Amino acid sequence: MEHPGAPRRGIIFILSAPSGAGKTTISRAALKVIRGLEASVSLTTRKPRNGEVEGLDYHFVSEEEFIRRRKSEELAEWARVFEACYGTPRAALDRVVAEGRDILLDIDVQGARQIKANYPSDAVTIFVLPPTFAELEGRLRKRATETEAAIENRLQKAREEAQAYPEYDYLIVNAELEDSLTRLKAIVEAERLRVKRLREEFAAWKN
Amino acid sequence: MEHPGAPRRGIIFILSAPSGAGKTTISRAALKVIRGLEASVSLTTRKPRNGEVEGLDYHFVSEEEFIRRRKSEELAEWARVFEACYGTPRAALDRVVAEGRDILLDIDVQGARQIKANYPSDAVTIFVLPPTFAELEGRLRKRATETEAAIENRLQKAREEAQAYPEYDYLIVNAELEDSLTRLKAIVEAERLRVKRLREEFAAWKN
Repeated sequence: MEHPGAPRRGIIFILSAPSGAGKTTISRAALKVIRGLEASVSLTTRKPRNGEVEGLDYHFVSEEEFIRRRKSEELAEWARVFEACYGTPRAALDRVVAEGRDILLDIDVQGARQIKANYPSDAVTIFVLPPTFAELEGRLRKRATETEAAIENRLQKAREEAQAYPEYDYLIVNAELEDSLTRLKAIVEAERLRVKRLREEFAAWKN
Repeated sequence: MEHPGAPRRGIIFILSAPSGAGKTTISRAALKVIRGLEASVSLTTRKPRNGEVEGLDYHFVSEEEFIRRRKSEELAEWARVFEACYGTPRAALDRVVAEGRDILLDIDVQGARQIKANYPSDAVTIFVLPPTFAELEGRLRKRATETEAAIENRLQKAREEAQAYPEYDYLIVNAELEDSLTRLKAIVEAERLRVKRLREEFAAWKN
């Protein structure tokens, strides 16, 4: 257990990707295999899907409640994605960082920009891209739960979102899940060794 | 084999530490276990030690030759450490970076500053510290091949050198070799994923 006397500040790892790049799969697996990485539970206005649990997968709220929290500045970032709103509760995030714990945020480009602006030295941004655009198209079409118009809409949005990768710190080209996980793990471990995150008291080594 | 068409520029990994911190051991092991990491062969004016091979461990040169190369700006960095001069040949370093290969430089604080100044976006600096100063003292005394005055001199210098860690990008506290190697490997792998190192042509993904 780390706490306010921890040798370093907590890190906010942000994972973004165009839809279909495999971000959710990587994110879920990462929370299982990377030691000391916590999940962030987002607020959302969309309805729970099969098997999703309140407080574990999301905090499900009404549109009115979401707007109220956003206006009272309780959200560290928020975005509207395909008709629903998603947001990250600020209090939980601030506590995690202050206590020297690390958290993984699975958020979109708009949200990533807000976190990077509000937590410039604590946020580490990682973009996930499929090896080629054709691969992305294949993955999206294989889901096939949507109309052609909806797929075209997602593809167009994915292509736009992909343009954002130069704003990020790291790029993972996701060909094999196992390789991508190894890479994400290396990023997490390396960022934990950054001198800039050390708290003053580490300087005690000198004496 | 990577080459000028490689998707990213090569990285210069710099490992520095106060003497006795275990840097040479980590560096040798790293070159064996980290894929695609090359050794840099320094120029030195000191005499070869037992088993050291010209062109593999060092390029052994006279003081006059060293000065000549330094004055004709053939060295990317150089430093005088305990009566001998050490330097990194610039041409070899430039070629490695241009070809997208990664290299490990085992150099002191003075040299690290020069490389960081001359290759600001290609250099990644890593400082190694023993867990405590007492541990460092113990390691230095165990070698016991030197007079008390020489040991005191090294200890004083080590204490001074340790003050430089805040200038570095990463800090590895070297308790167990195996852990330190894992950390160094994570740093190398993470730095290879940095968006800022990608060459323009990667943007080809968009099309």
